Amino acid sequence: MSHNFDLRLDTLRTAYHDDRITPRELITELRDKAAALNPDYHLFIHLLSLEELEPYLAALDGKSPDELPLYGIPFAIKDNIDLAGIPTTAACPAFAYTPAESASVVRRLVALGAVPLGKTNLDQFATGLNGTRSPYGECRNSVLPEYPSGGSSAGSSLAVALGIATFALGTDTAGSGRVPAALNNLVGLKPSKGLLSTHGLVPACRTLDCITYFTATACEASELLALTAQIDPLDAYSRANPQWNDGGAFGTPRPFRFGVPQAHHLQFFGCDEGPELFANAIEQLRAIGGEPVELDFSPFLEAARLLYEGPWVAERYSVMGELMERDPEAILPVIRAVLAKAPSATAVEAFRAQYRLQELKALSDALLSTVDCVLTPTIGRPVTLAELHAEPVLRNSELGYYTNFMNLLDYAAVAMPSALMDNGLPWGVTLFGRAFTDQYLLSLADALQRRTALPLTGGLAAKLPVPASAASHDKARLVVCGAHLDGLALNWQLRQRGATLQCKTRSAPAYRLHALAGGPPLRPGMVRVAENGVAIEVEVWELPSAELGSFLTRIPAPLGLGKVELADGSWETGFICDAWGLEGAEDISRFGGWRTWLASRE
Amino acid sequence: MSHNFDLRLDTLRTAYHDDRITPRELITELRDKAAALNPDYHLFIHLLSLEELEPYLAALDGKSPDELPLYGIPFAIKDNIDLAGIPTTAACPAFAYTPAESASVVRRLVALGAVPLGKTNLDQFATGLNGTRSPYGECRNSVLPEYPSGGSSAGSSLAVALGIATFALGTDTAGSGRVPAALNNLVGLKPSKGLLSTHGLVPACRTLDCITYFTATACEASELLALTAQIDPLDAYSRANPQWNDGGAFGTPRPFRFGVPQAHHLQFFGCDEGPELFANAIEQLRAIGGEPVELDFSPFLEAARLLYEGPWVAERYSVMGELMERDPEAILPVIRAVLAKAPSATAVEAFRAQYRLQELKALSDALLSTVDCVLTPTIGRPVTLAELHAEPVLRNSELGYYTNFMNLLDYAAVAMPSALMDNGLPWGVTLFGRAFTDQYLLSLADALQRRTALPLTGGLAAKLPVPASAASHDKARLVVCGAHLDGLALNWQLRQRGATLQCKTRSAPAYRLHALAGGPPLRPGMVRVAENGVAIEVEVWELPSAELGSFLTRIPAPLGLGKVELADGSWETGFICDAWGLEGAEDISRFGGWRTWLASRE
Repeated sequence: MSHNFDLRLDTLRTAYHDDRITPRELITELRDKAAALNPDYHLFIHLLSLEELEPYLAALDGKSPDELPLYGIPFAIKDNIDLAGIPTTAACPAFAYTPAESASVVRRLVALGAVPLGKTNLDQFATGLNGTRSPYGECRNSVLPEYPSGGSSAGSSLAVALGIATFALGTDTAGSGRVPAALNNLVGLKPSKGLLSTHGLVPACRTLDCITYFTATACEASELLALTAQIDPLDAYSRANPQWNDGGAFGTPRPFRFGVPQAHHLQFFGCDEGPELFANAIEQLRAIGGEPVELDFSPFLEAARLLYEGPWVAERYSVMGELMERDPEAILPVIRAVLAKAPSATAVEAFRAQYRLQELKALSDALLSTVDCVLTPTIGRPVTLAELHAEPVLRNSELGYYTNFMNLLDYAAVAMPSALMDNGLPWGVTLFGRAFTDQYLLSLADALQRRTALPLTGGLAAKLPVPASAASHDKARLVVCGAHLDGLALNWQLRQRGATLQCKTRSAPAYRLHALAGGPPLRPGMVRVAENGVAIEVEVWELPSAELGSFLTRIPAPLGLGKVELADGSWETGFICDAWGLEGAEDISRFGGWRTWLASRE
Repeated sequence: MSHNFDLRLDTLRTAYHDDRITPRELITELRDKAAALNPDYHLFIHLLSLEELEPYLAALDGKSPDELPLYGIPFAIKDNIDLAGIPTTAACPAFAYTPAESASVVRRLVALGAVPLGKTNLDQFATGLNGTRSPYGECRNSVLPEYPSGGSSAGSSLAVALGIATFALGTDTAGSGRVPAALNNLVGLKPSKGLLSTHGLVPACRTLDCITYFTATACEASELLALTAQIDPLDAYSRANPQWNDGGAFGTPRPFRFGVPQAHHLQFFGCDEGPELFANAIEQLRAIGGEPVELDFSPFLEAARLLYEGPWVAERYSVMGELMERDPEAILPVIRAVLAKAPSATAVEAFRAQYRLQELKALSDALLSTVDCVLTPTIGRPVTLAELHAEPVLRNSELGYYTNFMNLLDYAAVAMPSALMDNGLPWGVTLFGRAFTDQYLLSLADALQRRTALPLTGGLAAKLPVPASAASHDKARLVVCGAHLDGLALNWQLRQRGATLQCKTRSAPAYRLHALAGGPPLRPGMVRVAENGVAIEVEVWELPSAELGSFLTRIPAPLGLGKVELADGSWETGFICDAWGLEGAEDISRFGGWRTWLASRE
């Protein structure tokens, strides 16, 4: 098998379906490849033996790729996530234990047919963003060996970038699932907190931790998220995935607005190419329908600083403080230094920092409410291994400039490649947004990957599957044609739900408009007809999907909400009228719209 | 004016409307009454002078009760909530300051026409549930003088119970807005956290505090909440009120399920009448359509214990710790004792307690998801002043047995009278439920008040206004007639949204059922007709209101959701079909339902 064998989900499915390879053959080859690469890259702490692999392969015997969505798909697991029977080290041998059960997400993946290859190297206790803080060796970059892989999910990113696994599980508290994606030409999905169960994860900060996916493409991450985002009774921080965040996020995006940090908040830490690379990413996003909007980035950046300067280090200490007190040498000096202040932090300090975070979140949420997502660089500047060694804490902190606030503020984020630097290193951007906009962000990332058509990891050409369906969003669009029009009698019902006017337009020329009998309020019945239809004046509003239900349930018969065709041929959710309700109604189509008819009556 | 002058909202509105009294006359009389009662009850720390009242009264000049929903309505303010220009003491003279601005909720009430009478006495720093922990005097009970008012919102409860104010603002962290309601025959609404802005409140535990309403009736509390629940940019903990929680919650309840603690978790602390009083309350709730369900109450009770045994005392200490260190004598000894451990609590302890709370919340939420609300006693046993003095901490802690968990778990609660004890003291129950079910809980409380017809505070007969509209809920009902029926092809779309089957029934005999052209999936068109209608087999499902929007937006034309009439004559939200979509459809009404038709095709 070549180094560049395409391991993407669809490719492997087709290969299995066509009997071109068996899971046993593929996994054995990948295991050999991993064993060969590990001395250079130190990506695996524990590579499963053929004997350890056998139960997973045996479970696929007699099954087909049509039955199991992840049939024979190889994946790697960051070594702070449990795999049954294999030690979990968190890159700290003295901390190691052997779990009897796999983490919930791992169990789910295995149940769907995926095959775990091994446990991957990480910055110890997931504390770091560079991939060098491990007694199991430094993880160097998959493209340029003088650079690090990034961390803390170092080995997991390498497993995908080096063509050993289709996807890998990382974790992300400060940016550990995004920084290595940027440095290794990968998509790094940091889902909304609680979507992927953290049961079976060694906590870094239990209130913030997320399990993440590394993939070559956004559409694979979308599918994996859809398959594994589940409420888990074993994880108290688990949250239900609202169904507007369901999969199938591969459609062409609607026009959208994306925030970018004001220029004086952008930091590239001396990277000359950075400003142009980011400006180019903005243009690419504009080309797929985005309109950039400058945002005051200061509340995000102040929140970011809370992560290590505030009491959240006490969360890390609560996990390994006992070991650190008993056997300080078991912990890397740099980690001990990060946690030095943790034992003496008081509960008063913890609550006060939470108050400040809440204030910053209110400010950040208000900014986010004005856009569909935000675009930032993922890291300001790639640093070399030599630079990291010279100033480990400063360089690490620079790597987190655009990432540290994300979980504190409860946002979803997708890191993705957007360009190649002159030296060949990938350069990445992050799309982030409100909690539970994961699939929407992935749909934009997917569109951006199509647009940039960058080589995928391992030098694969970017051939992406054809878009299938419209992107999900946490907002819904609603076509109104009567008393809900801007300024009219029932418009407050939209505004009180946070709705905003998107556009004034007309329906397709296929409707008749009626003034229904009864009232006040006077109500319109807009009815699609086979003949003699006219175009009716309508407005498209957008409101939170969660508020649409209470709007619907208060609509009296004969009205309801269904699909309405607009002048541009698109169909949107909007008011329809049950035919029986037209009894006694007046056909007012000749006025072309409710507003004109109302004016004619004055 | 008699002691029993009816101050309820509707009564006063009518009196103002009919020019039977002016705000100036009423407020002057109430001020005199308050001044006369204060030496016995110590309910006011600061009663506004006529001069201080004048600006509020002057603002009403030239206005009418029709313009301002709270025109001339007298209210009292707990003295940990700011009123511009009047000292805020939190019952600690050394802590006092004079705010330039009123708290956000007070400003809103004043803008709506309400008139503040004064600042009321409380347990110092709102730390206590009994009403005796104040240097401004003990607040005795409004019914039996040997009992306390309850606290910490002691004076506010008395202001309403003694007929001085229509309503009063309290606060509630551990139960301070509910315990005094129970002891003084009042409704005490502790809204969901964040609904009423806490800007301008001296925090007790800033992550938990709520501002509350004391009223004579649930319908008044409902109206006040609807008028004042607003996002406040000045309060970072402020939350948007979902519109299914809007006012108008006065309708007859649908049949509902309410949790009750398992018998071994019920505690009456030696109150002989308690078990029967609570059993009677269950029967009353059953009589208005409720079905009791026993719940394991242990996670609620463990959460309750965290409030004072855990690190949340550090939140209180963060407010007044500096004063306590500087001038210990300024703080009552009992408060100092409660906070003794606070300064030494660590951040690690704070986070660990939050982890445990999250686990308990997951357990409690799972229990709550099986019912519409929960019923408990508000307090297990009223204790006398003498008993409180003998064992202040133990008795206080008993008073919080059913209340301390509420804000930690983020639930809404309504305390209300359910009976009179043999000695004449009121006895109360609490209805609580998921966050943002406030108006639903109030609709049940309103129905219960109608049912019990207890004398209202001050001996008023319980004449309540006639119900106006249906109660809101955080769940919506949906009538399905085709592929969404239980077990059929699209039913998973309901189940993945957490929907549950409520009943199988038929439509009113006014519909025709069609199999639409196209598919798969095969889709039904159920259309209301003027003639030859038949009853169609349907199912009623219930799903979270927040999930209904994403269900709706994915329904393809010509289908939509509107109102469907059921066999019992009720109208529910359900599938409708645009008439144009019937082209090429087959009328299958003769089968009586989709399921039967499907079976006929096999």
